[in-house]
Amino acid sequence: MNLVTDAVQFCEGAQLLPVRGVRGGRPFDVQDWVAEEVPVALEYNGISHAVMLATPLDLEDFALGFSLSEGILEAAHELYSVEAEPSALGVTVHLQVSSAAFARLKQRRRSMAGRTGCGLCGTESLTQVSRELPVLSSEGAAQFDREAIGRAMSQLPSQQTLQEATGAVHAAAWCSAEGEVMWLREDVGRHNALDKLVGALAANDVDASTGFIAVTSRASFEMVQKAAMAGAPLLAAVSAPTSFAVATAQRAGLTLVGFVRQQDLGVYSHPQRLRTADPQRVR
Amino acid sequence: MNLVTDAVQFCEGAQLLPVRGVRGGRPFDVQDWVAEEVPVALEYNGISHAVMLATPLDLEDFALGFSLSEGILEAAHELYSVEAEPSALGVTVHLQVSSAAFARLKQRRRSMAGRTGCGLCGTESLTQVSRELPVLSSEGAAQFDREAIGRAMSQLPSQQTLQEATGAVHAAAWCSAEGEVMWLREDVGRHNALDKLVGALAANDVDASTGFIAVTSRASFEMVQKAAMAGAPLLAAVSAPTSFAVATAQRAGLTLVGFVRQQDLGVYSHPQRLRTADPQRVR
Repeated sequence: MNLVTDAVQFCEGAQLLPVRGVRGGRPFDVQDWVAEEVPVALEYNGISHAVMLATPLDLEDFALGFSLSEGILEAAHELYSVEAEPSALGVTVHLQVSSAAFARLKQRRRSMAGRTGCGLCGTESLTQVSRELPVLSSEGAAQFDREAIGRAMSQLPSQQTLQEATGAVHAAAWCSAEGEVMWLREDVGRHNALDKLVGALAANDVDASTGFIAVTSRASFEMVQKAAMAGAPLLAAVSAPTSFAVATAQRAGLTLVGFVRQQDLGVYSHPQRLRTADPQRVR
Repeated sequence: MNLVTDAVQFCEGAQLLPVRGVRGGRPFDVQDWVAEEVPVALEYNGISHAVMLATPLDLEDFALGFSLSEGILEAAHELYSVEAEPSALGVTVHLQVSSAAFARLKQRRRSMAGRTGCGLCGTESLTQVSRELPVLSSEGAAQFDREAIGRAMSQLPSQQTLQEATGAVHAAAWCSAEGEVMWLREDVGRHNALDKLVGALAANDVDASTGFIAVTSRASFEMVQKAAMAGAPLLAAVSAPTSFAVATAQRAGLTLVGFVRQQDLGVYSHPQRLRTADPQRVR
């Protein structure tokens, strides 16, 4: 509740709604920007597949990124067209995919008998949880400077325009090894923000392995899974990781960094990929 | 990353993991408490239904609350037994439910062809999104003092023991009208924390309508849906609501409060249920 209505004339992805505010015990009525959240249905070659609650921005990126993260598409060129169709109930995104991708989808639906929005739920039993992840090589010299990660993270707020207006959305960004934020996507769901980013990278032929992904949220299993599927060698989160995220990052060869605060951070897996100013280890 | 290992000897729901920390440019190795996140499968009368990533605490509450939120159970007494069975892959929770509840579940699975973890995903098309919600009466006098909401919210951190150790989990709490935190549950997922709370209330015969629910997260559509299903007249979030959350709260007769900060807050629906010290409205 920024209540700075006059300062923002229009905010894509947000609605201006009446709010009864209370400040210092005094009530007042105002209009405030509230982040849009709408049901978004993904339909592949005419077949409904999944519905997610999402911010209705960058839905082409979302459709492509979700399809890649879920392994429905193996590459962006398997997606022939994407069309978003708004209705009173939400947005239906029509994807036309290659026959190979569609066969993959049908095979998966048969074997899973109930499909999924965020990578896990919809899954019906424990044996369906683990997915084959590409394993990154963690050999060789460090690829990233600690300072670059702190620099990228400190740049994020100035680029989170929807978050600034609404306070309700997360961001996922791809950053160069030098710590410049190159691509950023926002969404009410942190998984969606990351899927949108993955889609934007693929649509623009960005090699994710040359930089790292920074997210404004915690790092859970699914965030690590999506980053690994995208080929990013390092995932940096502003907040905490979970145990399953750490274990998955270990297995996938991904460097998982949490609690990034200016000059400070914690490395939960594959620390050899991170250069620190002072290689000496103190306890 | 609290890095206060010595201060915490044991933390239920967390694992002690090695972390490479960097503070002020200096690397060091330490052990840190990381929140556990495990796949939890719910199995009704022997039939696998859904898998969620969750904190493996209070799983009986979770199973009951999820079943009530999803409308699989209409009342707690329809759940005959709950047994959590850990394995290498995660935890399977075996629920024995009444034949009426099981028939409801089978009917739903037939009509939806793929069921859901967090209330929406798994849903395949937009027409399946909206669910009948009980509509609370918003007639009559205000039921809650603004001060009580601020008081409850300020009590939360002292009761979030897992969050204090790990920084990775959300809490949902049921609070008396006077602003005392009566029941609190934590989870890596905010939906799960709320489902656990709903289960705890039902298992302990608490009438949710006499108090309100406070959450440490944002308020999205699904959080409002779960609070309304539980019969809570007010949902207070420490952070922002979404547009769909506001619309759903309007429809369900629920008072949605966001951005609770000590004496300040924003009311996004049904403000008549909230007493403010000063009834005069200023612009």
